[in-house]
Amino acid sequence: MKFTIVTTDGNARSGLIETDRGEVNTPVFMPVGTVGTVKAMSPEELKEIGAEIILSNTYHLHLRPGHEIIESLGGLHTFMHWDKPILTDSGGFQVFSLSALRKIEEAGVHFKSHLDGSMRFLGPEEAMMIQSCLGSDIAMVLDDCAPYPASHAYAMDSVYRTIKWADRCKELKREGQSLFGIVQGGLYEDLRKKNIEELVGIGFDGYAVGGLSVGEPKEDMHRMIYFTAPLLPDNRPRYLMGIGELGDVLKAVHAGFDMFDCVMPTRNARNGTLFTSRGKVSIKREEFKADREPLDPECDCYTCRNYSRGYLRHLFQSREILSMRLNTIHNLRFYLNFFKNMRKSIMEGTFGVFKEKWEKIILQ
Amino acid sequence: MKFTIVTTDGNARSGLIETDRGEVNTPVFMPVGTVGTVKAMSPEELKEIGAEIILSNTYHLHLRPGHEIIESLGGLHTFMHWDKPILTDSGGFQVFSLSALRKIEEAGVHFKSHLDGSMRFLGPEEAMMIQSCLGSDIAMVLDDCAPYPASHAYAMDSVYRTIKWADRCKELKREGQSLFGIVQGGLYEDLRKKNIEELVGIGFDGYAVGGLSVGEPKEDMHRMIYFTAPLLPDNRPRYLMGIGELGDVLKAVHAGFDMFDCVMPTRNARNGTLFTSRGKVSIKREEFKADREPLDPECDCYTCRNYSRGYLRHLFQSREILSMRLNTIHNLRFYLNFFKNMRKSIMEGTFGVFKEKWEKIILQ
Repeated sequence: MKFTIVTTDGNARSGLIETDRGEVNTPVFMPVGTVGTVKAMSPEELKEIGAEIILSNTYHLHLRPGHEIIESLGGLHTFMHWDKPILTDSGGFQVFSLSALRKIEEAGVHFKSHLDGSMRFLGPEEAMMIQSCLGSDIAMVLDDCAPYPASHAYAMDSVYRTIKWADRCKELKREGQSLFGIVQGGLYEDLRKKNIEELVGIGFDGYAVGGLSVGEPKEDMHRMIYFTAPLLPDNRPRYLMGIGELGDVLKAVHAGFDMFDCVMPTRNARNGTLFTSRGKVSIKREEFKADREPLDPECDCYTCRNYSRGYLRHLFQSREILSMRLNTIHNLRFYLNFFKNMRKSIMEGTFGVFKEKWEKIILQ
Repeated sequence: MKFTIVTTDGNARSGLIETDRGEVNTPVFMPVGTVGTVKAMSPEELKEIGAEIILSNTYHLHLRPGHEIIESLGGLHTFMHWDKPILTDSGGFQVFSLSALRKIEEAGVHFKSHLDGSMRFLGPEEAMMIQSCLGSDIAMVLDDCAPYPASHAYAMDSVYRTIKWADRCKELKREGQSLFGIVQGGLYEDLRKKNIEELVGIGFDGYAVGGLSVGEPKEDMHRMIYFTAPLLPDNRPRYLMGIGELGDVLKAVHAGFDMFDCVMPTRNARNGTLFTSRGKVSIKREEFKADREPLDPECDCYTCRNYSRGYLRHLFQSREILSMRLNTIHNLRFYLNFFKNMRKSIMEGTFGVFKEKWEKIILQ
């Protein structure tokens, strides 16, 4: 994996990640394909709307269908018929957020599967082995994600564990698979700084900031975004994990982050909340009943080219599968266009104007 | 609408229906798009798998979103982004099967909406008006569908009502919209014959046989299929309503029917039951877990070209939307290929061989 910064505009960067499976222009939004499919979408549709990389979840695929099965079926790319880059998380976040009965120790985490209640174990070695079976282009180290709120002592423990686990993951880094380190440390500057220094000492292909958007006030999240970004190496991609609200993305790009993932656009789509150039709308609204207009007249997606708001409302009210498809195509296209225009603004040195314009729309 | 018989093989016919919106080769299978979408499919996908005409339901669209809304949005074709022919049923069957509190009188049927319990009324005039708003290429007359079992007296009443309603529908036939009559009469030969004679006297663009597959034994259904087909005019399409099990289709084509619709392939797809050249399979089966093969190695559909049985099983187990999409694409493609090969066999004079081969596979 090669990372090049193409332009900067203040701290905002537009860059290029080159992998064996294709190029990724940053800042990039990675649609989430939790269990080996971006919900409601085909891989061809993802390509058509401009997705260059997707994220898949190690935890979910480990539990079902099992990484051995995916490996025996040719790896995750072949399994899901997607030949562009895939980033897999390490499973850490899901173990800490979805599963019950966690017991954390030096070796890893004992947890109970949210699917069948079976007892499982995930340590750095297991996380690397699973991601190796999946064959993702970018793997993530296993991290210990502290909850919010967490005491300084608790957060420090989790940082030290995260560093040790990162070191063990690095040992097992596989040829041809990039590996990113993850920064924890809750809302404590000293811990975030310590974690970053240690990770950089070990050396990774990219650096991610985790443990945010776990319930803390927005101001704290933003403070951590602006605190961590400048401490991360300049010449490596900086990935802000799990954050995708556009207001937060604007701040993070402004601070110097390059990579983002979030289930929000896809989940909102299935719930009928759609992004437009004039802000969010709920397609349920009575006023759309006989509306002949496309959802967003400024959008060029398949949905907006071919269907009226009236039809989209009808499909949603009727709980039709096509509703989730058309809404997801639109929301993802909206996100990917947003990122494309954001990159363009960085290249043209007008990111500040872009940010201001969108912050107004978002706040409406 | 123009109908030409291209070849016959015994009583089986291969024909061509020409409409302003395109050609339909018969025998034809019409995928069902109940509420203005063939569940899980986009119109482009329907075209890709070879659908030449779809069916939509007057009853459902009348209740939601309402035919006035569809008309104001440019008619059903524009509404759902499908520019090929559409056949709409008259709503009769659904009123008799789905709604509660029916009261049948000369003018029509009072019924309670299955959606919100509101009282509604559907008579021949309403059925024609709704279908006119929808703008379908082929409309159906409102019929009185007797339940099974029905006494001779009850079935006779329903036949006479069906004839009177057909006459009133014919009066309202709209320029540019074809109109098919419907034959009722339960399992009584004399009533079926009477109904056909009267309909032919009125004169329609095509003739449908209704009131079968409502709970009667298969032998009775087949007896009625073979009894009615030869009584229907030779030079008009013959449509066997709501019947689509392949064993029944083979008999009906053998008897001389041309048009079919059924929710079975699409509904089965969503439930994980898939049609293959070796018979039906459930994709849930444990044995498919790590199976690299396509679902049906003889199938040329998008699903079979790009995905393994192992992936299809995983998607189904995970209740993913893509599971319903890929399964529906496959089952519909299987059906449409089945019909294409059946037409070919009629044209080559080998329908008997085709029928025998498939009856063996189906009975396995």
